[in-house]
Amino acid sequence: MERVKTGIAGLDKMLNGGIPLHRHVAVYGGPGAGKTSLAFEYLYQGAKEGEGGIYITLEETEEDLVANMKNTFPMFSDIDALIQSKKLEVVKPDKLQMEDVANILEDRITSNEVKRAVIDSATMIRLSFKEEIEYRQTLFEFLSLLRNLDCTTIVTVEATSPRKEAIVFDIEHFVMDGIINLYNLDREERRIRALEVFKMRGSDHSRDLVPFKVTPSGIKVYVGERVF
Amino acid sequence: MERVKTGIAGLDKMLNGGIPLHRHVAVYGGPGAGKTSLAFEYLYQGAKEGEGGIYITLEETEEDLVANMKNTFPMFSDIDALIQSKKLEVVKPDKLQMEDVANILEDRITSNEVKRAVIDSATMIRLSFKEEIEYRQTLFEFLSLLRNLDCTTIVTVEATSPRKEAIVFDIEHFVMDGIINLYNLDREERRIRALEVFKMRGSDHSRDLVPFKVTPSGIKVYVGERVF
Amino acid sequence: MERVKTGIAGLDKMLNGGIPLHRHVAVYGGPGAGKTSLAFEYLYQGAKEGEGGIYITLEETEEDLVANMKNTFPMFSDIDALIQSKKLEVVKPDKLQMEDVANILEDRITSNEVKRAVIDSATMIRLSFKEEIEYRQTLFEFLSLLRNLDCTTIVTVEATSPRKEAIVFDIEHFVMDGIINLYNLDREERRIRALEVFKMRGSDHSRDLVPFKVTPSGIKVYVGERVF
Amino acid sequence: MERVKTGIAGLDKMLNGGIPLHRHVAVYGGPGAGKTSLAFEYLYQGAKEGEGGIYITLEETEEDLVANMKNTFPMFSDIDALIQSKKLEVVKPDKLQMEDVANILEDRITSNEVKRAVIDSATMIRLSFKEEIEYRQTLFEFLSLLRNLDCTTIVTVEATSPRKEAIVFDIEHFVMDGIINLYNLDREERRIRALEVFKMRGSDHSRDLVPFKVTPSGIKVYVGERVF
Amino acid sequence: MERVKTGIAGLDKMLNGGIPLHRHVAVYGGPGAGKTSLAFEYLYQGAKEGEGGIYITLEETEEDLVANMKNTFPMFSDIDALIQSKKLEVVKPDKLQMEDVANILEDRITSNEVKRAVIDSATMIRLSFKEEIEYRQTLFEFLSLLRNLDCTTIVTVEATSPRKEAIVFDIEHFVMDGIINLYNLDREERRIRALEVFKMRGSDHSRDLVPFKVTPSGIKVYVGERVF
Amino acid sequence: MERVKTGIAGLDKMLNGGIPLHRHVAVYGGPGAGKTSLAFEYLYQGAKEGEGGIYITLEETEEDLVANMKNTFPMFSDIDALIQSKKLEVVKPDKLQMEDVANILEDRITSNEVKRAVIDSATMIRLSFKEEIEYRQTLFEFLSLLRNLDCTTIVTVEATSPRKEAIVFDIEHFVMDGIINLYNLDREERRIRALEVFKMRGSDHSRDLVPFKVTPSGIKVYVGERVF
Repeated sequence: MERVKTGIAGLDKMLNGGIPLHRHVAVYGGPGAGKTSLAFEYLYQGAKEGEGGIYITLEETEEDLVANMKNTFPMFSDIDALIQSKKLEVVKPDKLQMEDVANILEDRITSNEVKRAVIDSATMIRLSFKEEIEYRQTLFEFLSLLRNLDCTTIVTVEATSPRKEAIVFDIEHFVMDGIINLYNLDREERRIRALEVFKMRGSDHSRDLVPFKVTPSGIKVYVGERVF
Repeated sequence: MERVKTGIAGLDKMLNGGIPLHRHVAVYGGPGAGKTSLAFEYLYQGAKEGEGGIYITLEETEEDLVANMKNTFPMFSDIDALIQSKKLEVVKPDKLQMEDVANILEDRITSNEVKRAVIDSATMIRLSFKEEIEYRQTLFEFLSLLRNLDCTTIVTVEATSPRKEAIVFDIEHFVMDGIINLYNLDREERRIRALEVFKMRGSDHSRDLVPFKVTPSGIKVYVGERVF
Repeated sequence: MERVKTGIAGLDKMLNGGIPLHRHVAVYGGPGAGKTSLAFEYLYQGAKEGEGGIYITLEETEEDLVANMKNTFPMFSDIDALIQSKKLEVVKPDKLQMEDVANILEDRITSNEVKRAVIDSATMIRLSFKEEIEYRQTLFEFLSLLRNLDCTTIVTVEATSPRKEAIVFDIEHFVMDGIINLYNLDREERRIRALEVFKMRGSDHSRDLVPFKVTPSGIKVYVGERVF
Repeated sequence: MERVKTGIAGLDKMLNGGIPLHRHVAVYGGPGAGKTSLAFEYLYQGAKEGEGGIYITLEETEEDLVANMKNTFPMFSDIDALIQSKKLEVVKPDKLQMEDVANILEDRITSNEVKRAVIDSATMIRLSFKEEIEYRQTLFEFLSLLRNLDCTTIVTVEATSPRKEAIVFDIEHFVMDGIINLYNLDREERRIRALEVFKMRGSDHSRDLVPFKVTPSGIKVYVGERVF
Repeated sequence: MERVKTGIAGLDKMLNGGIPLHRHVAVYGGPGAGKTSLAFEYLYQGAKEGEGGIYITLEETEEDLVANMKNTFPMFSDIDALIQSKKLEVVKPDKLQMEDVANILEDRITSNEVKRAVIDSATMIRLSFKEEIEYRQTLFEFLSLLRNLDCTTIVTVEATSPRKEAIVFDIEHFVMDGIINLYNLDREERRIRALEVFKMRGSDHSRDLVPFKVTPSGIKVYVGERVF
Repeated sequence: MERVKTGIAGLDKMLNGGIPLHRHVAVYGGPGAGKTSLAFEYLYQGAKEGEGGIYITLEETEEDLVANMKNTFPMFSDIDALIQSKKLEVVKPDKLQMEDVANILEDRITSNEVKRAVIDSATMIRLSFKEEIEYRQTLFEFLSLLRNLDCTTIVTVEATSPRKEAIVFDIEHFVMDGIINLYNLDREERRIRALEVFKMRGSDHSRDLVPFKVTPSGIKVYVGERVF
């Protein structure tokens, strides 16, 4: 099985080498859990290795996102260069519509040799629908389209509670090929970041909950360490 | 009472020999709990013994599902051969409609000597309805149709929480003849897989919660072992 | 006060002799809790004593239900004979409508000397209504009709959680004359069956939670024993 | 302050002598908690002392209710006599409408010297409305009417959970002058009955939770005893 | 900052002297928590000091409310005198409409030198709306009106649970200037009354939970004592 | 990265120097948690340093808000002066509409050299919509507008529970650049104020829960101290 390295060493180890090629993974967690950082580093590490990536942001502007990532990862000194060379593209669609997102993706993947994509976040699209059923159908059709494209995708999904016990599975968990849960856990009056690979179709993976940090030189996943 | 062996040794023991013939069993669990693996192995083991099987996938494409299963079970070296010989068929209907699923099933069972069927998942059909009542009627009618066919079926159902305490019973639990619950439990910062036979009409069965693993050579159910 | 023996020794003891004549009792529990077995044995034991009984099944076919009960209770060797002699009748109405159920009941009770009836389950009827209010009115009218008939009825009701603490009372609990709760409790990684008589209008009754088993020779209720 | 003795010794003590005259009290509890028994004894004890009472039953028939109460309280040997002498009347309105209940009450109170009334239960009326708002307005208007009549009323209200912690207050708790909570508590695998006076406008009252029993000679409230 | 003494010694101490002048405070608690008693004493103590007060009752009749308060506070021997002298007025509007309440308040405050007002309860108005949004707008407009009047107001609000942990904040908590929570807590099978000042805009206040009692001579707040 | 000092020493330390310039932060907490005090001090401290600020109040009148803040912070003796010099402006829009809020902001920021803005609260706008979807779109568009203005904004958001475990994330948490949670925690029958920086895009920050107080000379955040 071919795999796409996320470039985050500990995470690739947990994934037995990376995300299976052409699979589509949900990164699920509450606000501040690190979803955007993880998704961005996935593209950045790919771009450094020559794999084109596109980041579709539905919440922040392109400028804010890039500025935030440069601040979050000051050691990633070549972000601007990668953007200029089109290895890394950040796009904010004019409208909050899955159709626009799909068109942009399709266009870039066929014409720009993009191999990695991020959609941040599916929740913004969900919240733009009045009826859940319409979102579900849209997401389902979008996934069908993705399955025909030559790319490996991370879709961020917002959790509605910081508590691990309060996870509620929904359509995104059912249709995506994999789920990586990010937590912002409460340990003796401190928030501790932790992650687990919850589901990965067709691939064995670590089943541990492990602490991680967002550091200036990238995300560090502490495989083998305990959270509590 | 005639029984259909699942071919998963520990599970057949828990079921007192297998699923009662012509009964229809829900395999219920959250994302990543192992529903697809269990359902696929049920068909695979039957096909190896000469019993035709059909896997109706409503989430993944046929290609992805087969690739995932070959990766999950590398020791099942004859999957392709069984597919080629039509002993094992994987179908993705064009539409998310119970009627299509029913037509495919009816057709294959009468013409292809299919004895085992899997529908993965009922939840995808549920989510395609705007009104719950329509889903219920559709499921009910579908079950009525199944009861007239010469096959023994597994229907996967998505749980909305990983916690055993949070099970909520719904229409699928009420109308299906049996329920096998799969869990992805939280044990000291590790996810542990466990299962129980929760209901099996007309048959005694184990009432234990037991750990299981998805291994390269098939699912192993550790009857008699403790989860915690 | 005249009473109808259920024929399940421990249960009759808990009920101070049986269900009060012409009263209508809900048997409430989750899937796999033993509702169908208990309701069927109630009819079977009556039929053996010469009291005609009718089982209205809204989930399973007549054939499946009888086959399942013969498998569940292999020592009840005269089930077929009782069915042939019309002492025990199993009927599946064409439609999921309370009106049909009512007509069948009325017809059999007046013409066939039926004294015991089972409706399995009220929940199937509930789920066939789009609006709760319509179900409530239908159930209420149905109960009014039942009160004019010369029979003692068990109506099964599906619980939506296996946890004893999660019981939610609803219309069936309010309008029925009695409630017997069946549980499938979690005791150290085993499911243990337990029951309690929760309500019985006009009659004293045991207020204990007691374990029970579904055995080949009938349901055994272990009065005086502890569950945990 | 004038008070109406319930005739249940322990309860009258907890109420500092009885229910304040012309006040309207909710008796709140789950199925099997003893609401009907308590409400009926309130009327029975009044009738024995010469105070006319009317029991409006919305769930059971008049015949069933009287039969049940005679079975529940075999030592109340004069129930039939009190009914014949019109000191105690049990009425089931043709329809589930507050208006009918109001008309019956108004008629009996003015013409029959009725001083005590029971409505069993407000929940049946609630469940007959499609919209909560209509029930609320109806209940509110009904209370306004009651306040102009020369009677002291008990209205039973169904709880939806047996757990004391799960009480949810609703419109009946807000508009009624008093609330007596009945519980069917879980104590080491036994159901124990307990009650508390939760609210009584314009009157001091016990604030204890106390056990009670429904005995052949009437309800016994064990003031000063502990439940657990 | 000018303050209005509630006249309840312990409470005034907790409030650092009283309710800030022209502010509007929610008294929040379940049925039987003592909301009406506290609100009434606030007016009574003001009237004794010469400050006119108006009590707008939306649940009880004027007669019942006054009778109940005379029974609750037998030592307040001059209630009738204060009512006769118009220092204390109790009004029940004909309709459950905020507009009526507003008109009455506006009229009395400008013409009768009313300085203190009570509205008991906001919940009754809420329950009279079919749509929450209409209630919110009405309450919001009503608060705007209040802010232009020369009075200091207590509005009672019904809680839906007796448990302190189950507080749910809603529109009343957001728009009112202050919140005093009253509890009817469960302590070893007794209900214990306790209160806390939860919010008071522009004023420091005690942040303790303290026990209180409704005694014949008025409410006693036991500042410095523990509840459990 | 340029930062805007809140002027609250402990908080600026937790934020690694202040709120990132041109970012928009939600201050989230229940009633009485200190949201208004924190947001106001943010403007006040800016005004003292010469940065113009505008406070848009949707709950209180301008007069009440200013009076409350002068009472809360008696040591901020120059509030009136700052208001007179237009360094600090408090505005209550005529209507509860995001459009009005946007117009006021846009106008002041371009013409008055306003650099800091507060909107108190987003919840008031939310509650003015009948449909959630409309609020979401409005908030989203409003954020888009804010992103084009030269200001750094605090938006207060009302929590619906005082319990830290009961946080529910919603649209405001997803679209805002940062979240500061304020709590009013229950510690041995006292309410203790605590805060945490939960999310801050593009910036590292403290991940501790720390106690804070609203004192006459401003908010004191006790970095390094424990709450329990």
